[in-house]
Amino acid sequence: EIRAVTADLSPAGMAHLLEQVAPDSRNQLVGILKGHLDPETLIELDDEVREEVLENLGPKDIAAAAQELDTDDAAEIISVLPEIERREVLSELPAADRAVIEETLAYPEHSAGRLMQRELVAVPDTWTVGQVIDHCRDATDLPDDVYDLFVIDAERRLRGSVALGRMLRTKRPVPVVDIMDPDIPSIPVTADQEQVAHIFRDQNLVSCPVVDNERRLLGVIMVDDVVDVIDEEAEDDLARMGGVSGIDIHEPAARTTRSRFGWLFVNLGTAFLASSVIGRFEDELQKVVALAVLMPIVASMGGNAGTQTVTVAVRALAMGELTTANALRFVLKEIIVGGANGFMFALIVGAVTWLWFHDPRIALTIGAAMVINLVAAALAGTLIPLGLQWLRVDPAVSSTVFLTTVTDVVGFLAFLGLAAVFLL
Amino acid sequence: EIRAVTADLSPAGMAHLLEQVAPDSRNQLVGILKGHLDPETLIELDDEVREEVLENLGPKDIAAAAQELDTDDAAEIISVLPEIERREVLSELPAADRAVIEETLAYPEHSAGRLMQRELVAVPDTWTVGQVIDHCRDATDLPDDVYDLFVIDAERRLRGSVALGRMLRTKRPVPVVDIMDPDIPSIPVTADQEQVAHIFRDQNLVSCPVVDNERRLLGVIMVDDVVDVIDEEAEDDLARMGGVSGIDIHEPAARTTRSRFGWLFVNLGTAFLASSVIGRFEDELQKVVALAVLMPIVASMGGNAGTQTVTVAVRALAMGELTTANALRFVLKEIIVGGANGFMFALIVGAVTWLWFHDPRIALTIGAAMVINLVAAALAGTLIPLGLQWLRVDPAVSSTVFLTTVTDVVGFLAFLGLAAVFLL
Ligand SMILES: [Mg+2]
Ligand SMILES: [Mg+2]
Ligand SMILES: [Mg+2]
Ligand SMILES: [Mg+2]
Ligand SMILES: [Mg+2]
Ligand SMILES: [Mg+2]
Ligand SMILES: [Mg+2]
Ligand SMILES: [Mg+2]
Ligand SMILES: [Mg+2]
Ligand SMILES: [Mg+2]
Ligand SMILES: [Mg+2]
Ligand SMILES: [Mg+2]
Ligand SMILES: [Mg+2]
Repeated sequence: EIRAVTADLSPAGMAHLLEQVAPDSRNQLVGILKGHLDPETLIELDDEVREEVLENLGPKDIAAAAQELDTDDAAEIISVLPEIERREVLSELPAADRAVIEETLAYPEHSAGRLMQRELVAVPDTWTVGQVIDHCRDATDLPDDVYDLFVIDAERRLRGSVALGRMLRTKRPVPVVDIMDPDIPSIPVTADQEQVAHIFRDQNLVSCPVVDNERRLLGVIMVDDVVDVIDEEAEDDLARMGGVSGIDIHEPAARTTRSRFGWLFVNLGTAFLASSVIGRFEDELQKVVALAVLMPIVASMGGNAGTQTVTVAVRALAMGELTTANALRFVLKEIIVGGANGFMFALIVGAVTWLWFHDPRIALTIGAAMVINLVAAALAGTLIPLGLQWLRVDPAVSSTVFLTTVTDVVGFLAFLGLAAVFLL
Repeated sequence: EIRAVTADLSPAGMAHLLEQVAPDSRNQLVGILKGHLDPETLIELDDEVREEVLENLGPKDIAAAAQELDTDDAAEIISVLPEIERREVLSELPAADRAVIEETLAYPEHSAGRLMQRELVAVPDTWTVGQVIDHCRDATDLPDDVYDLFVIDAERRLRGSVALGRMLRTKRPVPVVDIMDPDIPSIPVTADQEQVAHIFRDQNLVSCPVVDNERRLLGVIMVDDVVDVIDEEAEDDLARMGGVSGIDIHEPAARTTRSRFGWLFVNLGTAFLASSVIGRFEDELQKVVALAVLMPIVASMGGNAGTQTVTVAVRALAMGELTTANALRFVLKEIIVGGANGFMFALIVGAVTWLWFHDPRIALTIGAAMVINLVAAALAGTLIPLGLQWLRVDPAVSSTVFLTTVTDVVGFLAFLGLAAVFLL
């Protein structure tokens, strides 16, 4: 009965259902469906849920699913299995399939080699359009989602591609080399998936051939997998900026607690550093308690202004828009923006402070500290991500923690330091 | 000479070059290239740079470019022009092109109607494969990037689609209705682009027909434009979480200053709110200055833990993973995570504080405040985005400002309030 109800669901719909229900119902559901589960569903599932579902399937079920899937998807499923189970599943596969999947898994994670599928149509450069069409008609296992045919020479080196639409419109006797596009982009098998995404984005591609370093055709990357890469990379950057290692609401609480602890621990270190700065001004704080009341304002404004700058810098770096060619212009612009907003907020905060504590000296002090901290925020917000990128560290990972360290320390130091000089 | 050098660049490469150079050189470059600029370049440019380049082109150049582009791209270019220039450009266009573009611009921004192109191949449901192939051969203006043909009835209602690969493999006398897929997804013309992205993602599409509410075929959305939408939506969410209205490093400093001011002003309000909480404990702060030194730690840890939760919630909401079905489980899990980390950090911070200030009561106070604030952060970090979503406000826009208000106020109130009770 449940099988009948769920039979109409698309793989994505089925995956969504499995993700939405409570873990208990999920296991029950998988137990009932088992062999009736569309293998594509496994591809659409979130990592955590996928692992859980795979645990409920035996090696035989998984091997059967892998044979139905494209090689990239089969490899992905198998790659997340624990070592022992992985070997069991591989041993269930026919030798040819096993070889292809083992080859795919030999490429590093996040490389073009992992993303590409082996399913493609490659035709010799000696054929005519008629021969190609006859070949396609005979090959009954040809997938529907082929959009380009690849033309190769006798050594399997890529010579060009022919869009199917072009093929359809050409007369049978024409040689394929006459209608192929020889200037097509190709992706080295070792390329990182971020690079792959850039190539698809820039050239508006639907599929792209993958080649080895002698330009031999190895596979093809399809745009739907690149869409997943783009989602993944964007999610990673958002997660890192937010101080989490990943976004998976299905992760068990214990694991989430542990993975968040690290970032909070680093933050605690920087918070103590900021406190030690405050600690050097105990006398001043005791004499003018207004300082304690106001000091978080300067630090908080610096943190927020700096976060604005870091956000823009991290994204522009990820999208290849911020480069050495325009980095200096960017830094100067941010300093101007920080200075200008610093000046305006100095006026506002100064006025409110004056009204609140009736002391123009405190107002002047907080205003000056505000300008200093917003300029420091602009400097830190640009130079930290640029420096991390230069050191080949992902700027999204650690920019914010360095940034708030700077804006907290500078904020407290500037405000309390100026107060020590002018007020006491 | 410059024309010769840049002639080899792809539109994306040319766009990248124009974005990288200083504004002066950019205007010079555009002046030299003018009519030789590939219209596709305009599509690949960032908004700010595009506006600048368009200013350097006359209405005639822009109209010529628009005629070469797909309707969606032509409409996009024209939509960013100032009203007067827009009318000039439209009047330069042939009546048919003008009508199509005006129709496209009549759909709301970010709707499927804006994303779709009119260029597509629709064939009557009475045709055979042979008739379709002959039609394609005769239509010399057929674009290469057609992947699916759409089958329509006499009222132009969508009946199904045929992948080109399928067409190529079928014999000429077969009626197209026999090989068409009748269960294809279609997108209502009024759908939001976020919905469009979800459909492409879930169904792994390369193109998707757009229909009106009587299922009449209006246009087709191509995956390369959906890739742009996905980039845009991810960038928007990242930007909003970081407190900026958009990510465009080419925006002039004055405009950036103004657009960042708003968010910082809101933040200033919440900072004063937090200060007013501190202000209620002036006596305590004066008596025990260690409180002033330590209080930012509790607030900062709450802010960071809450940001972790908000980040996960905002992304999971955007991706449709967090729904009413699992919201309660999510909130409970985050409370457990917050409580567990709160307890661990209470021990750590308590120990350090005891060593630093040699007063177990301060250590106990800060520990208790830490637990309270991390649980409050979990509650606020989940309930604020869920509440905003429920109110149909984009949770990415305002979650963080509400969150830090809660964690600052609760942090200061818990720590100083407990101190007032236990220490004095
Ligand atoms: Mg999913
Ligand atoms: Mg990567
Ligand atoms: Mg594009
Ligand atoms: Mg895949
Ligand atoms: Mg695939
Ligand atoms: Mg990245
Ligand atoms: Mg996910
Ligand atoms: Mg660009
Ligand atoms: Mg997909
Ligand atoms: Mg476009
Ligand atoms: Mg388009
Ligand atoms: Mg959104
Ligand atoms: Mg941009």
